[in-house]
Amino acid sequence: MNNVEIIGYGYSLPKNTVQFGKQTRYRSKDGETQLSLCTNAAKNALSNAEITINDVDCIISACAVIIQPIPCNAAVIHNELSAPNGVPAIDICTTCSSFITAFDMVSYLIDSGRYNTVLLVSGDMSSIALPEDDKHVFELFSDGAAAAVIQKSETKGIISAYQRTYSQGINLTSIVSGGTSDPPYNYSPERDHLYRFQMNGLGVAELTVKVLKRDFETFMSNAGFTRDDIDVIVPHQVSTALPSLMKYMGFPKDKYLNYVSDFGNMVSASVPFALCKGIELGRIKKGDRVLLLGTAAGLTVNLLYFIY
Amino acid sequence: MNNVEIIGYGYSLPKNTVQFGKQTRYRSKDGETQLSLCTNAAKNALSNAEITINDVDCIISACAVIIQPIPCNAAVIHNELSAPNGVPAIDICTTCSSFITAFDMVSYLIDSGRYNTVLLVSGDMSSIALPEDDKHVFELFSDGAAAAVIQKSETKGIISAYQRTYSQGINLTSIVSGGTSDPPYNYSPERDHLYRFQMNGLGVAELTVKVLKRDFETFMSNAGFTRDDIDVIVPHQVSTALPSLMKYMGFPKDKYLNYVSDFGNMVSASVPFALCKGIELGRIKKGDRVLLLGTAAGLTVNLLYFIY
Repeated sequence: MNNVEIIGYGYSLPKNTVQFGKQTRYRSKDGETQLSLCTNAAKNALSNAEITINDVDCIISACAVIIQPIPCNAAVIHNELSAPNGVPAIDICTTCSSFITAFDMVSYLIDSGRYNTVLLVSGDMSSIALPEDDKHVFELFSDGAAAAVIQKSETKGIISAYQRTYSQGINLTSIVSGGTSDPPYNYSPERDHLYRFQMNGLGVAELTVKVLKRDFETFMSNAGFTRDDIDVIVPHQVSTALPSLMKYMGFPKDKYLNYVSDFGNMVSASVPFALCKGIELGRIKKGDRVLLLGTAAGLTVNLLYFIY
Repeated sequence: MNNVEIIGYGYSLPKNTVQFGKQTRYRSKDGETQLSLCTNAAKNALSNAEITINDVDCIISACAVIIQPIPCNAAVIHNELSAPNGVPAIDICTTCSSFITAFDMVSYLIDSGRYNTVLLVSGDMSSIALPEDDKHVFELFSDGAAAAVIQKSETKGIISAYQRTYSQGINLTSIVSGGTSDPPYNYSPERDHLYRFQMNGLGVAELTVKVLKRDFETFMSNAGFTRDDIDVIVPHQVSTALPSLMKYMGFPKDKYLNYVSDFGNMVSASVPFALCKGIELGRIKKGDRVLLLGTAAGLTVNLLYFIY
């Protein structure tokens, strides 16, 4: 077990919401940006932890996409938070599951004493890249950010973590243009769709069903726990199909958090936001054994079992 | 000490070179891309390690910029290398010093047995974003990639590593547009410069001089070694001013690797390429105590002292 503890959490949502039937989505407006959402979430997490940015000795951005190409998101957030001179700023990314990957990786560094107090921030603003002609995708996503402050713990920690990437799914969820393979200056209105988020929902569902349950069984078996040992499951708020997926995984309804209708899929903020909301609403209590269950473009699977 | 070892290394350069006086620069042509450079470097590192991609259990991209916005670089490289189903793919980024950050972070995971054989890839293709009207910047950079295979070791390892970020330097080295703060679809020829690499060379030099020596002294003192304990220094191939910086740091000419004239500054590939070249040319031998010294946009400083 890596002995770490979440000592503070916080999130930030745009003020503006839009309604698609019973589905509520948060969409940035009036100058709200990925950066402002991330920094507000970070400030809320610091406040919840009853510390200030001066107590942090490492800042990690775990977002899906970039605020600007150079420098990295964490340095931009570092600057916006007026973090003390010298506090290291690092980006860790596995798209939608970045928060789990970062929590997992940084737990090794905290456990071995390299860092004492790490600020972990995930936030995305998918609204700027949603394709208006794909109703399913357009009506699914929300903008938002969530953050956590992680410290060394005596009694709590990450019992086990697991990651798998299946790059056969590389084209199932993508924004293909805007990086070096097709730079921004190639943009033209005729090619606009290439710079937008594309998702083959059926393909994602098929590959997820194929690998996720098997990965979960392997993970449980390696880590030596069973479904009954989990108090709460915090899944990626993938879509309104979440209950079907959870049922297929063998998780009863009262075991997992589902905030899709009220908040949508927040990309990298999806899992940490659901975690924050679960704590806030009393669904997750100190000492609970929590399973974070992420799926991401790639396709990547992240499982992390920890004591909150 | 985190007990890890570089068991293989490799790099990849574009075929095409351009000459600016005595300075040789590598610039991609004919379909060479950030992705092709990265995958070729990875293949060379695997071959040098006398293993195949099937022996790797984690792939880490440590590039400065993205190949495409979604999914992450490591998943794209995973796909291109036909990596086995499930091998995790993760991006770690601190711009130019990403390789050092990633080597540092992953050493904790290897040392504690999470992963056995990690493929670390850094590569960038700055030529697509260089401003033609800024001679100093335009004539400095090369495209290229470098990779390393890292495994658990009995005798070798990272003795100490250190990172600092000074975000007061955030605007000194940047590409401000192309991410969520100013998406590709805002591009217009009149705004082209915002999507290009910008560097305030004098500002970078001033901030670097201000912090780097002090950081190095702190790092040495914390880690308990002196300049005499270093066999070879592998610095970021920052510019033709490298000798002045090294002299200021108190490093004699025969102690550090300088390949700026022949190869330029390769962004994230700069440090690992110099490391590869140093090994290839016999400047670095097995058992040598090596200092990796990175500076990056942010401004970020990375120092890593290890036994090769």
